[in-house]
Amino acid sequence: MTDILDKVGCYKFLAEPFHCDFSKHLFMGHLGNHMLNAADFHSNERGYGMSYLNPIHKTWVLSRLAIEMTEMPISYDEFNIETWVDGVMKFFTSRNFTVVSPDSNKIYGYGKSIWAMIDTDTRQPVDILAIHDGLILDYVDKERQCPIAKSSRVKMSADAKLVRTIDTNYSDVDVNGHINSVKYIEHILDLWNLDWYVHNKIKRFEIAYVAECHCGDKLNFYCEHTSEDEYCIRITKSFKINAEEVEVVRSKVNFVKD
Amino acid sequence: MTDILDKVGCYKFLAEPFHCDFSKHLFMGHLGNHMLNAADFHSNERGYGMSYLNPIHKTWVLSRLAIEMTEMPISYDEFNIETWVDGVMKFFTSRNFTVVSPDSNKIYGYGKSIWAMIDTDTRQPVDILAIHDGLILDYVDKERQCPIAKSSRVKMSADAKLVRTIDTNYSDVDVNGHINSVKYIEHILDLWNLDWYVHNKIKRFEIAYVAECHCGDKLNFYCEHTSEDEYCIRITKSFKINAEEVEVVRSKVNFVKD
Repeated sequence: MTDILDKVGCYKFLAEPFHCDFSKHLFMGHLGNHMLNAADFHSNERGYGMSYLNPIHKTWVLSRLAIEMTEMPISYDEFNIETWVDGVMKFFTSRNFTVVSPDSNKIYGYGKSIWAMIDTDTRQPVDILAIHDGLILDYVDKERQCPIAKSSRVKMSADAKLVRTIDTNYSDVDVNGHINSVKYIEHILDLWNLDWYVHNKIKRFEIAYVAECHCGDKLNFYCEHTSEDEYCIRITKSFKINAEEVEVVRSKVNFVKD
Repeated sequence: MTDILDKVGCYKFLAEPFHCDFSKHLFMGHLGNHMLNAADFHSNERGYGMSYLNPIHKTWVLSRLAIEMTEMPISYDEFNIETWVDGVMKFFTSRNFTVVSPDSNKIYGYGKSIWAMIDTDTRQPVDILAIHDGLILDYVDKERQCPIAKSSRVKMSADAKLVRTIDTNYSDVDVNGHINSVKYIEHILDLWNLDWYVHNKIKRFEIAYVAECHCGDKLNFYCEHTSEDEYCIRITKSFKINAEEVEVVRSKVNFVKD
């Protein structure tokens, strides 16, 4: 590489009107999608993104994502997502996000994510530091602050109740043939009805991707009310013939009264 | 108005990777969303868009949309959507779209749409020509070609079969409190499974919005195979208590073998 870019990338987005909910605030799923785009642009520009990896049969896989917002952009708001990698290990990297107004005067919120790299043929983990002789290390920024809690293991008891089962369809599937990471966010947040969102807004949303799902899998949503304003969700998949369920996602949502 | 802008607006979009299907082609629903954004940007810039209308309690309502594609943008493709109004009547306008590569060398496809304007308090039609003394007429372009068929009334017989019933949820609802126009497109195209899309691609998609739906309404999908590669879909809503169904959407999909 001849140039060293900034460690932090900054990408401009618009809260498109049809990506906003009844209260004119950007849907959490669409914000998550913008974060994934920012991560993708950032890593592609720096030589370790999908456009380099895919032809050599490797890809990034999102493992965990946590988003914590003090305010959600509203319809037509322009905002920037700043993103940087703050840690790299052999099999995982951690990447942070700041959602900020274009003049940098207002911070809407933050995100933290964990990514693995896999071989697309074997589905096995790949040594991230072997890519371009550890190129990614040139861009690690440990100084810049992202003042929200890391995602932690979501603990759930046997009391979690099955609250919904849905089919997965064509629109749920991404370019890798798996259920789209962002669609899980939508399906989870759909567990609460519109009236709930009139009186509650999402303070923090956390999701861990445990296993991959394919089109046609049924998704079973188990929900547990773990403390005031905190709900934990486990999603399992079930196959058509076999009744055995396999855990695919865990998530935790913290609401605040609006 | 001090400036007269071009009659045709041109807006740049990216086929974002998470907006693409298993075959790496942009989902039709996301393309529809981009067309609605282009329409929104175009009308706002010219003084008769939502940002002028909403404060005076008026809004545009999409009545019909037809999209016909020879090719769909693939993941990471940049493309432009050109849009212009080609006809205005008292209660309806027609607006066209061209989806084109940034260098204008490749035309991906076209769109045609019909819009009404309503009063958001009374939900009654509004005289479009009364807005800014018929300002919209300054921007009508009848010369520019959009060589696809207009949407026509989708004819269905009593043979159409109920193929799916779904609940509507928080993520389906737009800033107006109604089921999002684009979500209907997704739900309709989800009637075919992934295997179908391996062998068939969408040549033309048509949708007419007949009545508004609210969160919690159940949507019933009736499908009729009207000719080779052509399917017509009627969506009705049913209320929780009353079993009576009301038609809300009609749609027609033409496939070509891939």
